[in-house]
Amino acid sequence: MKECLAKRMRNVNPSFVREILKVTEKPEIISFAGGLPNPKSFPIKEINQAAQKVLTSDGASALQYSTTQGDIGLREFIAERYRTKHGLDVSAKNILITNGSQQGLDLISKIFLNPGDPVVIERPGYLGAIQAMSMFEATFRSVSLENEGVDLSEFKEAIADYLPKFFYAVTNFNNPTGITYSAERKQQIANCLQKTNIFFVEDNPYGELRFFGEDVPLMYSYLPKQTILLGSFSKTISPGLRLGWVCADEEIIGKLVIAEQVASLHTNSFAQKVILQYLQDNDLDEHIAKIQNMYQQKRDLMVAELEKYFPKEVEFTRPEGGMFLWVTLPKGISAVEVFQEAIKQNIAFVPGDPFYVDKNGVSTLRLNYTNSSDEQIQRGVRAITKAIKKFLRECKINCVSDNSR
Amino acid sequence: MKECLAKRMRNVNPSFVREILKVTEKPEIISFAGGLPNPKSFPIKEINQAAQKVLTSDGASALQYSTTQGDIGLREFIAERYRTKHGLDVSAKNILITNGSQQGLDLISKIFLNPGDPVVIERPGYLGAIQAMSMFEATFRSVSLENEGVDLSEFKEAIADYLPKFFYAVTNFNNPTGITYSAERKQQIANCLQKTNIFFVEDNPYGELRFFGEDVPLMYSYLPKQTILLGSFSKTISPGLRLGWVCADEEIIGKLVIAEQVASLHTNSFAQKVILQYLQDNDLDEHIAKIQNMYQQKRDLMVAELEKYFPKEVEFTRPEGGMFLWVTLPKGISAVEVFQEAIKQNIAFVPGDPFYVDKNGVSTLRLNYTNSSDEQIQRGVRAITKAIKKFLRECKINCVSDNSR
Repeated sequence: MKECLAKRMRNVNPSFVREILKVTEKPEIISFAGGLPNPKSFPIKEINQAAQKVLTSDGASALQYSTTQGDIGLREFIAERYRTKHGLDVSAKNILITNGSQQGLDLISKIFLNPGDPVVIERPGYLGAIQAMSMFEATFRSVSLENEGVDLSEFKEAIADYLPKFFYAVTNFNNPTGITYSAERKQQIANCLQKTNIFFVEDNPYGELRFFGEDVPLMYSYLPKQTILLGSFSKTISPGLRLGWVCADEEIIGKLVIAEQVASLHTNSFAQKVILQYLQDNDLDEHIAKIQNMYQQKRDLMVAELEKYFPKEVEFTRPEGGMFLWVTLPKGISAVEVFQEAIKQNIAFVPGDPFYVDKNGVSTLRLNYTNSSDEQIQRGVRAITKAIKKFLRECKINCVSDNSR
Repeated sequence: MKECLAKRMRNVNPSFVREILKVTEKPEIISFAGGLPNPKSFPIKEINQAAQKVLTSDGASALQYSTTQGDIGLREFIAERYRTKHGLDVSAKNILITNGSQQGLDLISKIFLNPGDPVVIERPGYLGAIQAMSMFEATFRSVSLENEGVDLSEFKEAIADYLPKFFYAVTNFNNPTGITYSAERKQQIANCLQKTNIFFVEDNPYGELRFFGEDVPLMYSYLPKQTILLGSFSKTISPGLRLGWVCADEEIIGKLVIAEQVASLHTNSFAQKVILQYLQDNDLDEHIAKIQNMYQQKRDLMVAELEKYFPKEVEFTRPEGGMFLWVTLPKGISAVEVFQEAIKQNIAFVPGDPFYVDKNGVSTLRLNYTNSSDEQIQRGVRAITKAIKKFLRECKINCVSDNSR
């Protein structure tokens, strides 16, 4: 069959991450690998009430074909929230409901990318986006991510050299690193993109999950015509309902609507109406506050454990929100090898390799803290520490013998 | 923005059909245009019970991320039905759940088609498939559809000349024509494709809606390794839940799983579990029998009205199932012009143009009968008759004056 496949299929192989996630399905595994919300955060009872209400009051329209752009009430809710919480000048016309924000990435890639078209991404970058763009045969240029966002001089160089179709970034509690862009860095990036026809694709699935510190304005407020903003209910209400959205200039939304119609006609109308009913009958902010508390406690515990156990040569981020933190091992230690050691103790995480388009054997790794119990976090960190220490010793011995040559 | 867009976007314009469907949203319009199931056929109460059961018994897993290939119970149900009703040798491994069968078309196009790759389709062909393939810049060759399926000699010629990646067909109660392939024609097509590496993409959303006559074996039973079979719950349970599937050889499913993961991670897990619960607690065949009765009555009424009112020069199909019938006007009468006349009387249908990749101004049109009341069918047919007669008179006058030149 291989010879029948489109060329684009060469770019997307069964990923290492997928292999890892298969391993983590075993019940004995403590997994910091996935990006799963904690199921305790799901408002099951309220969703049940909303579903009953929708089916009782207007079941026929919830089960019928619907418009591609999405439920008007739901789009109005999302736009209203952007207006009041973020000061964005948007309305329902600027919103397209998608089958999770992953479909947003697929549709954006589809409408913009010819084979070989350059895009600029973060290094490390979100794997799902890299895969979506790879399917449309993008050429990647990645720019280092530092504490306040991408390195500005590298970014300017990449933009000038590559003239990409867009720059893609997860600006709040970044996946995989947990880093958040500063307002200043966003302003600098906006200045750099102004008067170009390069878009900023701002992926913001975790933005609502801030534990402390101040919200940073969304890129849309700096560059409204050039920002394509992705949002999702997956991390605040339920990922299983697969409801995300794109917020962008009407002209872009128009093109994305065509692409979505051709890709799947429209997003599940029952799920849209259920979420809308849930939002009308419940206080989303109150619900999100509960998730923030739950996740902050887990984040604090993991940070404390890492501070207590990890050797001082190991660095890690201290995210202000979101679901992940990012570990940098001393040079020369491969995170894949640490993974292979840790998995023997039934502990899983994602080694950094798949988040780089241009490197492997890297010494970074991602830890998720939202979906483990306190006891699992404690046991897991100790086991990873043990694995790191083993390689640290070997590395030191090798370094000595290297020096003696 | 235009200059930023991918080349593929040139192939998919806001379609005439979409414009028509916008018009038909007005409540005063009698619409034979869309392909909407009758909402009276939706098992709203049963879906409500199923949703409550799912959320009460295992809400957390219904609302969590899930596997890309789809709920194992649902895939087993689908495979079991194929085994017992159609004698196919398939299991859950051969099934991928998609976001409606439209996503199946998108994913199949994505994994197989390089720009310019040839595909063979029916003439007229299903618009949604033409659009999905156009997005991946397919080159089309269409083959005439006659009473028993595509014209065999044309088909053989197209296959030999074009060596397409696949042949796409809606073999049961075809959209737009209502035609069903005979077993003999399927066997002839299978003979022709055997020992090639050309796939048969058999799209079968209406197959369960047979009013009379005998089921024809699915293409999968003739060519198991080369058939990619698409199915859907949209016409039997609910289109709003967006649940379709692909049934194919495991190797193909493996590639489609990768493509779906990248396109949307997975299909709504709540909807999958709700449908599965519905299927476990209810008799699908009993439910389908009710829909068949409802639609046959409407089909019979429309056929009777067309026989009564349409001028004898006008031909139309008499489908054995499904949702559409296909009208062929005398040569020289444009269905678009008839549409423009009928819409003045608030009657809508789809003129044939968009179902042809290589023609326009055609004299064919599609009528849907499932979503109108008896009275609407009667009034609608009379108004269309009036519009046709107007052009028939003009045509005769022009023909005379043409002859007199």
